[in-house]
Amino acid sequence: MSEPQMNDDDSLEDEIELDEPRLRLIQIALDERDQTALDDLLEPLHGADIADILEQISSAERGTLIALWSGHIDGEILSELDESLREEVLDALPAEDVAEAVRELDTDDVVDLIENLDDDDQAVAIMGALNEADRFAVERALSYPEYSAGRLMQREVVVAPSFWTVGQAIDFLRTAEELPEQFYHVILIDPRMRPVGHVTLGKILSTSRDTPLSEIEEESFRTFDATDSETEVAYAFNQYHLISAAVVDEDDRLLGVITIDDAIRILDEEAEEDILRLAGVDAEESISNRTLGVVRRRFPWLFVNLITAILASIVISQFEGIITEIVALAVLMPIIASMGGNAGTQSLTVAVRALATRDLTGANVWRVIRREVIAGGINGMIFAALMAAVGVIWFGSPMLGVVIAVAMVINLVVAGLAGVGIPVVLEKAGIDPALASGAFVTTVTDVVGFFAFLGLAALWLI
Amino acid sequence: MSEPQMNDDDSLEDEIELDEPRLRLIQIALDERDQTALDDLLEPLHGADIADILEQISSAERGTLIALWSGHIDGEILSELDESLREEVLDALPAEDVAEAVRELDTDDVVDLIENLDDDDQAVAIMGALNEADRFAVERALSYPEYSAGRLMQREVVVAPSFWTVGQAIDFLRTAEELPEQFYHVILIDPRMRPVGHVTLGKILSTSRDTPLSEIEEESFRTFDATDSETEVAYAFNQYHLISAAVVDEDDRLLGVITIDDAIRILDEEAEEDILRLAGVDAEESISNRTLGVVRRRFPWLFVNLITAILASIVISQFEGIITEIVALAVLMPIIASMGGNAGTQSLTVAVRALATRDLTGANVWRVIRREVIAGGINGMIFAALMAAVGVIWFGSPMLGVVIAVAMVINLVVAGLAGVGIPVVLEKAGIDPALASGAFVTTVTDVVGFFAFLGLAALWLI
Repeated sequence: MSEPQMNDDDSLEDEIELDEPRLRLIQIALDERDQTALDDLLEPLHGADIADILEQISSAERGTLIALWSGHIDGEILSELDESLREEVLDALPAEDVAEAVRELDTDDVVDLIENLDDDDQAVAIMGALNEADRFAVERALSYPEYSAGRLMQREVVVAPSFWTVGQAIDFLRTAEELPEQFYHVILIDPRMRPVGHVTLGKILSTSRDTPLSEIEEESFRTFDATDSETEVAYAFNQYHLISAAVVDEDDRLLGVITIDDAIRILDEEAEEDILRLAGVDAEESISNRTLGVVRRRFPWLFVNLITAILASIVISQFEGIITEIVALAVLMPIIASMGGNAGTQSLTVAVRALATRDLTGANVWRVIRREVIAGGINGMIFAALMAAVGVIWFGSPMLGVVIAVAMVINLVVAGLAGVGIPVVLEKAGIDPALASGAFVTTVTDVVGFFAFLGLAALWLI
Repeated sequence: MSEPQMNDDDSLEDEIELDEPRLRLIQIALDERDQTALDDLLEPLHGADIADILEQISSAERGTLIALWSGHIDGEILSELDESLREEVLDALPAEDVAEAVRELDTDDVVDLIENLDDDDQAVAIMGALNEADRFAVERALSYPEYSAGRLMQREVVVAPSFWTVGQAIDFLRTAEELPEQFYHVILIDPRMRPVGHVTLGKILSTSRDTPLSEIEEESFRTFDATDSETEVAYAFNQYHLISAAVVDEDDRLLGVITIDDAIRILDEEAEEDILRLAGVDAEESISNRTLGVVRRRFPWLFVNLITAILASIVISQFEGIITEIVALAVLMPIIASMGGNAGTQSLTVAVRALATRDLTGANVWRVIRREVIAGGINGMIFAALMAAVGVIWFGSPMLGVVIAVAMVINLVVAGLAGVGIPVVLEKAGIDPALASGAFVTTVTDVVGFFAFLGLAALWLI
């Protein structure tokens, strides 16, 4: 990114991004408790970067930073901070600093800050710092279910009666006492506070004063119910390129607006959740978790994996006799299982993402399953030929080559089938396919792989 | 999502989203070649939904839809369409429909449409449809490297000299001939066309006419060089909650702007890329790919996996003697390897994402590695105890239990170390850690797992 130019009156500040050299200097300043150096280093940074620093330094350094710099830790930094650290930082901050920080925030950010606090005292303190209108808005938002549009919205909105002209809207905006930090539309309402359309600020600015707002409203206008899920909201923002959208109550009256930054946060969180869940990691895990937290979060998946691995071992144990006779089977069997597991994971990942982005639906599910099965079969045959050659060259047994080849084709076909079929079935059953598919698919490919390979060996090699 | 209310003059349309029942009706209409029904079903939908339909129906249905409805396939639908289908659809559309569709687009969308076309004739036809100014802008954008800010930006900008007042800006906007579809800021420029700041439309609307724009400009203002990578741009939009940002040339003169929708698309693509690459799937793969495309895209990763699996088999073959004597080893050995592979994948996924979001840096890398190793050790000990018990109960050999337990601890510690260490080293070497880490990590855990388990068995059980 280029440094912006200074203009004549010097009103522009250089925008500085956090980089590793600066981070190292900050750590040195913390180590030496050098308040002046710390101010110089932190002052020019964006709140999001300060939050990143708090997440990346050690907890001892974090303590020093808060002690030396608590007056500067504002609402923005707190809302950017990873949830796993918020309570620690809130605890360390003097009560008056927390109160001041919270008062700067839009109500949606206060809701986000407060909703995951385990510590009720902190929540009470934050609510106490708000003025009455904001406190009411936060309480109202918290009355909606978690992960709903009602929790995401901010109460700060800009509205105009639908019969106003551009000029009336501009005059109103010029004299308005309190406007949101950022807003992109004026929402048109009817006399009962129901939103009936919206106008972009660009249109208002480029139209003559006497034009009625209703003449320049956007063609497309979407509202959300406060009880809509945040997943639906984020999907619609992404799909229809929304920048802000009104939220209404059960009587279609305006409650607030959701803006693009909220939607980006949700999209981000959901992609992250899918990535982590596909790898068997708790979606709440973060890089700032402590060791024991990590142990606890990783354990369940590893335990599930242990059970499935034992299942596979039980299959193997059925063939102990033939393994003792032909030890090459023990050498080669992990290859069949591993190829099946990998092919299954490929299909499954594509399917899970296509489900999440709504690209895999009733319209194409059978075509996709057929495609995966055929693709598995074709790749299976290629690898069957390769492995048959390896088997013959390595162990000098053509029949062993045939066994490997057939088992490989079977397992890769099954991998394609299970890789798409299992997530689709889980989704239908209301279970997040990202969470559970991996365990099912690898169990299937392990069991089928070992059974096909050792079973065929028992049939054909003796 | 709630249906918006109709206002009195009926100027609002109901916003209809695509759902499965409607998709089925569309398929029926296509099947029956029922033009009227098709119009009724497709007309109310957003372009992004039409693109989704084209992606989800079969290629025969796609042909019918284009034949019956080509006049309605506009620029928006084309830019929303998955890259894998664009050439097919462009080929099927009459030339004049393509030309008309393309002329509606902002220049950044034309660049996006054109840059991945393999078919030069299509690109030439699209360029030919543009007016001279747009063609020049598109050519200029294409002169910047792929995946750079220069490719992302649109030339349509709204600027004002920095000495103007609010009133002058409003008068200019009211008389401007061509304004971008959507814009969020007025960019302030100096006499040499260098951006020196920007003002939000909300500020312009809420300030009196005689106020100089320089008094209400935003405190923070970031510009990008046209050669900056799109990854950097997307990171900054996400980190600093930007909504639009100016792009400048090497002399700091304004070239265009990048808006939030471009940044969201990049963020989306990059998260998707990480998910797919972690599972060994080509990042370009999509649910609309044909079977042979899928075979070709999946093959390389499966081939890499075959090599690593053979490596593991070679380790096993060194211990053929002891396996023949104690067949329980063949039964149990996949458990050790599988637990190591899963634990390694957990660590690796967390590390790859933390690198992508710049949460894993020089400041915390050693702390994170230490944490992963200790967490691996602790989980290793828990599972060691469990598996030792299984070994003793199943095979009645306490010493076998000890071998399993020690091998488990070793492999889970190694998994933690490799899971973070390998992506960090790859990132330093300039290789995308999402792409290559998986193969390395599972090779390490397979080889170490088999070697530790069978090696300890050879030492202690004979």
